[in-house]
Amino acid sequence: MDGTRDIEALIDLMARLPGLGPRSARRAVLHLLKKRETHLLPLAQSLDRVGRSVRDCLNCGNLTTGDICRICEDPERQNGQICVVEDVADLWAMERARVFPGRYHVLGGTLSPLDDIGPEDLAIPKLRDRIAAEEVTEIILALNATVEGQTTAHYVAREVGVANITISGLAQGVPVGGELDYLDDGTLKAALSSRKPF
Amino acid sequence: MDGTRDIEALIDLMARLPGLGPRSARRAVLHLLKKRETHLLPLAQSLDRVGRSVRDCLNCGNLTTGDICRICEDPERQNGQICVVEDVADLWAMERARVFPGRYHVLGGTLSPLDDIGPEDLAIPKLRDRIAAEEVTEIILALNATVEGQTTAHYVAREVGVANITISGLAQGVPVGGELDYLDDGTLKAALSSRKPF
Repeated sequence: MDGTRDIEALIDLMARLPGLGPRSARRAVLHLLKKRETHLLPLAQSLDRVGRSVRDCLNCGNLTTGDICRICEDPERQNGQICVVEDVADLWAMERARVFPGRYHVLGGTLSPLDDIGPEDLAIPKLRDRIAAEEVTEIILALNATVEGQTTAHYVAREVGVANITISGLAQGVPVGGELDYLDDGTLKAALSSRKPF
Repeated sequence: MDGTRDIEALIDLMARLPGLGPRSARRAVLHLLKKRETHLLPLAQSLDRVGRSVRDCLNCGNLTTGDICRICEDPERQNGQICVVEDVADLWAMERARVFPGRYHVLGGTLSPLDDIGPEDLAIPKLRDRIAAEEVTEIILALNATVEGQTTAHYVAREVGVANITISGLAQGVPVGGELDYLDDGTLKAALSSRKPF
């Protein structure tokens, strides 16, 4: 086929997206070629616009089109509390749940010797600066309950820990709606050891 | 977040791709935003290039950047045989298998009253013209072994059927490597009724 090279190149790029393989990428591209005006070109423009306009918030690492993201700028946001998350996806998850009134700090990853991600790859110095600048009283380490996540949490706690600042982590236990029968031992252990007076 | 609107619009467009849902679309977009230079912008450009350059072959309906696709232009391709397929994906499947030396004709769908796709939506007149123009001796109806596919096959056969032209369809039977125990009754029935001398 003519123009196969272009189409193959597009399929390869699509196939590199998480959740898509070569097969589904081909299907997606054929779908786009059928819906050229209504889907393909708008998608191209949207990607281009986002790619050129969106960057990282200089303060917290969230995505923004300006220098500072809306959360950092928002005067309604409570001062003094910084919720440390691994990446923007986690920040969005917290925001969707509308559970945290303060501001965020995106580390940009977790310590992981295997992928050689070391402390220097995480936004920890910036966090230390913010603690000094924003009269922070509490740091909430909202990191994944995985080995990497918890290792990173301990490292960050040690790094930024100063007097008169509370450092807390998310509680571990039975998820809401969770049935004990289906929970792993680790979760049950955590839920039992941090049991609360009823 | 600033620029949320652009990002949300992009996520919506991605979520409309077959094989992606809102969740995986969000993951894909965040992945792209991490790999801006190496993945996002190239993808945008590739989409744009393909969207502007690629169109349907005027002869067979395959994808091409010119007026006529490479298969139709290829002098190596055998004259006289046209393989009728439902869409470009099926044409690609046949080409990947490298089993057909002739040329193709893409119908652009199958008869489906429910989605109101009628004969007028399929490239049947064009096929009739080609039969006259290209000294065709055989039409191979390589349509899906589904109700729609076979209905369409019968319709096309009736429409384009003229003297001195053989019309054939793909054989139905046990797929290569197939185990009888796992085959549906319809396949077994077809395989038995069109059994071959050993």
